[in-house]
Amino acid sequence: MSVWINGRLAASLDSRDRGLQYGDGLFETMRVRGGAVRLLDLHLERLLEGCRRLLIDPPDPLRLRREIERAASRRAAAVLKLIVTRGVGPRGYRPSGRERCTRILSLAPLQHRGAADAPVTVRICQMRLGHNERLAGLKTLNRLESVLARSEWRDAKVREGLLRDGDDTIVCGTMSNLFLRRGDVLVTPLLDRCGVAGVMRRWVLGASGRLGLDAIERRVRLDELWDADEVFMTNAVAGVMSVAEVRHGARRLRLGPARAASQLRAALELL
Amino acid sequence: MSVWINGRLAASLDSRDRGLQYGDGLFETMRVRGGAVRLLDLHLERLLEGCRRLLIDPPDPLRLRREIERAASRRAAAVLKLIVTRGVGPRGYRPSGRERCTRILSLAPLQHRGAADAPVTVRICQMRLGHNERLAGLKTLNRLESVLARSEWRDAKVREGLLRDGDDTIVCGTMSNLFLRRGDVLVTPLLDRCGVAGVMRRWVLGASGRLGLDAIERRVRLDELWDADEVFMTNAVAGVMSVAEVRHGARRLRLGPARAASQLRAALELL
Repeated sequence: MSVWINGRLAASLDSRDRGLQYGDGLFETMRVRGGAVRLLDLHLERLLEGCRRLLIDPPDPLRLRREIERAASRRAAAVLKLIVTRGVGPRGYRPSGRERCTRILSLAPLQHRGAADAPVTVRICQMRLGHNERLAGLKTLNRLESVLARSEWRDAKVREGLLRDGDDTIVCGTMSNLFLRRGDVLVTPLLDRCGVAGVMRRWVLGASGRLGLDAIERRVRLDELWDADEVFMTNAVAGVMSVAEVRHGARRLRLGPARAASQLRAALELL
Repeated sequence: MSVWINGRLAASLDSRDRGLQYGDGLFETMRVRGGAVRLLDLHLERLLEGCRRLLIDPPDPLRLRREIERAASRRAAAVLKLIVTRGVGPRGYRPSGRERCTRILSLAPLQHRGAADAPVTVRICQMRLGHNERLAGLKTLNRLESVLARSEWRDAKVREGLLRDGDDTIVCGTMSNLFLRRGDVLVTPLLDRCGVAGVMRRWVLGASGRLGLDAIERRVRLDELWDADEVFMTNAVAGVMSVAEVRHGARRLRLGPARAASQLRAALELL
């Protein structure tokens, strides 16, 4: 793995950085394909929107784009992770407002887990996501909920876990977003109280119209999974993952052929 | 400021550390007085309890205690911060279970803000704390809620901000815990859904009986502040801070002489 900190090859970070001290920062996990980042514009937009909401002085967008493109060009297929923290500041929670953000780029090989398009098994997690409107939707460095949820199972056959909030609505996976299709309507959970609004989720919401689907963001109850014609999960690295089976305790939901997911994967290939 | 990472003087940290990547760790902020850490046993207990709950393989307690004592002995008065992360691990949220934790100790001068015992002014924050039973009470590295809450005001006369949850109960301050006294009863918010259970809060709960006070942990509504005989905030560095004024928008609550807080400060001096 290669790591660049603020544009220079480096393996270590100032321990006073607020990214470590408080999780005071954001990240993007990007898929490199043919030496370029897929959906780079959407990643940069989300990052800058996150900086705005967390009151982090953002990195220069042009320089950041150049750094990302240069790193991505080193491999045909890879995962490129960008962390942006508020940077080094004085002790205490309150930012001085004079911090300069830290950029950490790391390029890692793509880990294939079975065939890329093979349908996956998901489970329902015990962990419940807490509500916070100020952080909802953002991919912040505060990821202990994701870590603990992903620690709930070790069975390699189960690819992903679905997370509910305290109100019993389904929010997202530990590292992906959820879509249900019923007829020609695609539904994905509203992320105004918790959850991470993925870049691939945003792309699917935009692309669904061209595939003749109506896409809706709203609250989703667990039992709606049982009535869906199709369920799939999305993230920037894996793309669109059809769900073949949902496990909830002893209960098993087996799902049929995935029409929309196949169409979306085909559209994604053309990008 | 001096920093030791895993027992050695060092200023920088492996950028793959999960403390940075996910806020996957805990911390303790300790007061050094006369070259020793005040309430060290309580800090170590809380840290080890946090490791247990986050499934982090804990540092060796004896070695850790020696490192802390050695660092503390360098200054008569200081703040000693200990971060323990899950350490460096493979990519992805799921810990491998083979990570070895990272210890980061940093010794900084004590920042005095006015007279140590002067009563303080606090405000009510807009930010609401999200519920998560798995993380409630722990001092984890996921501190964006604290950062954003502490960013709500810059007025140096306001020392602390009080945080509510989505159910409108008061939980704690951005960096301290809350106590209300009414007659001989001391009340502090229950921290089973959110908030950080401070070491000084625990000491006060234990010491209150010796001062003839009954201490209770329960849900506290905002309007109970208005009926209190006395309000104070606690943390390990500042000790016990009497609250002279609470600001809630245009509303001002002025509080009278602080009986229990003075007694507790006197007891703390004898430690």
